[in-house]
Amino acid sequence: MKRDYPDDSLTLHTDLYQINMAETYWEDGIHNKKAVFDLYFRNLPFGNGYAIFAGLEKVIDYIRGFRFSDSDIEYLREVAHYKEDFLDYLKTLTFTGNIRSMVEGEIAFGNEPLLRVEAPLAEAQLIETALLNIINYQTLIATKASRIKQVIGDGVGMEFGTRRAQEMDAAIWGTRAAYIGGFQATSNVRAGKMFGIPVAGTHAHSLVQAYKDEYIAFHKYARRHKDCVFLVDTYDTLRSGVPNAIKVAKELGDKINFLGIRLDSGDLAYLSKKAREMLDNAGFSETKIIASNDLDEYTIINLKAQGAMIDTWGVGTKLITAYDQAALGAVYKLVAIEGENGELVDTIKISGNPEKVSTPGLKRVYRIINNENHKSEGDYITMDEEHPEAESRIKMFHPVHTYISKFITNFTAKDLHEDIFINGEQVYEVPSLVEMQNYAKENLKLLWEEYTRALNPEEYPVDLSQKCWDNKMRNIAEVKANIKSQNIR
Amino acid sequence: MKRDYPDDSLTLHTDLYQINMAETYWEDGIHNKKAVFDLYFRNLPFGNGYAIFAGLEKVIDYIRGFRFSDSDIEYLREVAHYKEDFLDYLKTLTFTGNIRSMVEGEIAFGNEPLLRVEAPLAEAQLIETALLNIINYQTLIATKASRIKQVIGDGVGMEFGTRRAQEMDAAIWGTRAAYIGGFQATSNVRAGKMFGIPVAGTHAHSLVQAYKDEYIAFHKYARRHKDCVFLVDTYDTLRSGVPNAIKVAKELGDKINFLGIRLDSGDLAYLSKKAREMLDNAGFSETKIIASNDLDEYTIINLKAQGAMIDTWGVGTKLITAYDQAALGAVYKLVAIEGENGELVDTIKISGNPEKVSTPGLKRVYRIINNENHKSEGDYITMDEEHPEAESRIKMFHPVHTYISKFITNFTAKDLHEDIFINGEQVYEVPSLVEMQNYAKENLKLLWEEYTRALNPEEYPVDLSQKCWDNKMRNIAEVKANIKSQNIR
Repeated sequence: MKRDYPDDSLTLHTDLYQINMAETYWEDGIHNKKAVFDLYFRNLPFGNGYAIFAGLEKVIDYIRGFRFSDSDIEYLREVAHYKEDFLDYLKTLTFTGNIRSMVEGEIAFGNEPLLRVEAPLAEAQLIETALLNIINYQTLIATKASRIKQVIGDGVGMEFGTRRAQEMDAAIWGTRAAYIGGFQATSNVRAGKMFGIPVAGTHAHSLVQAYKDEYIAFHKYARRHKDCVFLVDTYDTLRSGVPNAIKVAKELGDKINFLGIRLDSGDLAYLSKKAREMLDNAGFSETKIIASNDLDEYTIINLKAQGAMIDTWGVGTKLITAYDQAALGAVYKLVAIEGENGELVDTIKISGNPEKVSTPGLKRVYRIINNENHKSEGDYITMDEEHPEAESRIKMFHPVHTYISKFITNFTAKDLHEDIFINGEQVYEVPSLVEMQNYAKENLKLLWEEYTRALNPEEYPVDLSQKCWDNKMRNIAEVKANIKSQNIR
Repeated sequence: MKRDYPDDSLTLHTDLYQINMAETYWEDGIHNKKAVFDLYFRNLPFGNGYAIFAGLEKVIDYIRGFRFSDSDIEYLREVAHYKEDFLDYLKTLTFTGNIRSMVEGEIAFGNEPLLRVEAPLAEAQLIETALLNIINYQTLIATKASRIKQVIGDGVGMEFGTRRAQEMDAAIWGTRAAYIGGFQATSNVRAGKMFGIPVAGTHAHSLVQAYKDEYIAFHKYARRHKDCVFLVDTYDTLRSGVPNAIKVAKELGDKINFLGIRLDSGDLAYLSKKAREMLDNAGFSETKIIASNDLDEYTIINLKAQGAMIDTWGVGTKLITAYDQAALGAVYKLVAIEGENGELVDTIKISGNPEKVSTPGLKRVYRIINNENHKSEGDYITMDEEHPEAESRIKMFHPVHTYISKFITNFTAKDLHEDIFINGEQVYEVPSLVEMQNYAKENLKLLWEEYTRALNPEEYPVDLSQKCWDNKMRNIAEVKANIKSQNIR
């Protein structure tokens, strides 16, 4: 049976090995060495051409609350058998480092740091799991929502997936991420309360079943709901549902606003066209048609291609679970650590797969925007001390196929990270959700349409500066030499 | 920005339409009519032959806490514009009905009620969304875990997926569900604290990177960890990782227990066989090999077929997100409602798809166990008042293809539901997680192997009693007549 703790904290929401490593560092006296970790994913999800970064607000809450509670310490002592001296250290721990991050709604791509942690080694290690858990999911859903919204176009997208979400946090934070990605409303009332997202909903089939008569059920519903949307598919959409909705709306006249009907089953293309005709003929040309039932970007493209007359799209399971790719694979890699004399020393994780090799060092990410057409030329990863915004000409080249290159002159280099925490103090103010949504929408305009289309988008350039690339090659060479020496130990 | 409420409750964790319907019922004075809802899924996930029911403990917590808080009411008034009289009613609301449910760890199948709610109509409606959200996810993951564990066999299964889980609740409740399904440990420390699940973990690549030397890193790690598992793939598993682990273990001798090595990349079949040889030759035949890296039931079957020498399987993303089918489609259908004279009247939702037609009425589910071989003959859904346990002979027949039938005589009929709430009072004591895991394990033995195998299992019979089937047919006929009369309104 679950044990409830009055001082429950999220600080233990981490993998055991993080605590083991913190213990090793502490025992060895290197726990306060400055370490730099990059958080990034390698591959864009869903075959999409871009991602929408989300999750920062919850990361901030988590970091601010980062502190082992008494019951956490008690658990680590009694069950996990950590020793008193190390627990004394953990008791005092808060997050004292720096975090630079993209803001929520930022357009993001593979192999660029979404977020960078510069902190005492043990602290940076202990927060890894929670940061990945939060950002992986919220970024995944914001991206899925944006992708679906691209296909919806001017129509309205509503998030309806709570009952199929992967537990409660996913429902709540997922619908928030969907809003950042461009969805306009949610069915989840608690998410409305917490985040100020508009809430939407009509009634279910059970209302009609409870009255065993659609016409009566619609009348009863309209008694308290001036703004009426009727669900018309409980028995037979065209022979019963739509005619009953029209009949009730005519009878009630000005007493209600007959905002819409909702289709939740059957051939949505055919039904929506027929229903539109029936509504128009009855004089309800302003009444909207809302559709739901296992929708995703592919079914929506299809329905639109068939001329479906749908104004509002209620998307559930496929959005809230990112059904066709249920996880984003973001990782958190050590890229530099304090050396003997206080200087930062680069680290690298190499791999047999060249695309899995991390990019060492303290770095920044810039978006290179062409001043003439206001379109982005690509993202540009530099060493921390570089200043592309002060340069008049930069060379951008593919980090693997280096012969693919171009020179850019008349450009603006936009630093994609903001300072979020400095020495453990929050220095960033979280904007409103609407601002995040608008930010994403505005920034998508920087991208050529070939990067944003849902089907077969082009690969957007994420390049390393020459200095950053040279540094990576040097690190690879060093590690290879080092492995040789380790082999003969 | 998120608004934090000191009196945050989960009662608003529902779809807006549930509140709209509650309002309609209340306005019409039928909110306290007794209603019966069945919660069930139609299709088993992953092509598996059975599911493992999970989520009840959280459902109980939710029901016990079901009460609109002051800030909930305030939100409903200010933002959602519900009127004062209805809000006065909501303020007083608690759950006062009955819930009968399968226990966690029960073997479940399609089209049988996992849980049955008998409650005042408005209350039963308001709790729908949360119940589905909880049970859909936890049952999905318990089932996935059980499926993977069937393939693992006598080996150990560890849940390692927090960083890829769909937000924090999924990590916590998902790993709990995985435990019920047969996994033996988790990496998530908070889940260990909350649920008493054994926690497991070694160290990450970053430890080796931090020391830039695998041999030194292993030594440092071993200083505080008597029970050592070394991650051996940071540089080169066979040329560096395993030899360094062996070297350190030999040097430290009795000072440590060299429990295992962990492989996290590369060809796990080849590497595990070679590593096993190296460990055995060095005298460490008791040292276990732990493998991880995108594992699921298919990769595990494959690795075993190749003779991989893996003792413990760390499964992450594919388990915690149920990657190949990220949602279970359980629904919650009104099956009966109080009539004019206080009697229960059946309701039915019909559909063009015969398998989507609900089964009306207050019902029970029995497992029919053959007394001779102690194997289950199938599940048997009856009307509430039937008593198959008192009958000497029952006829079981397929609910769609009715010619498929058999008579059973020497059997035990086990009622699959227990009373959880009676008149809003909890009457069920939640057992320990270990008991749930054992319950699932024991009950799987009732199933012939053709139902439990991971690949192409047979379809387990879920049949209706003759009375229940006749009742369903009668209801279908009535509704069809009723639609005709509605069409000509």
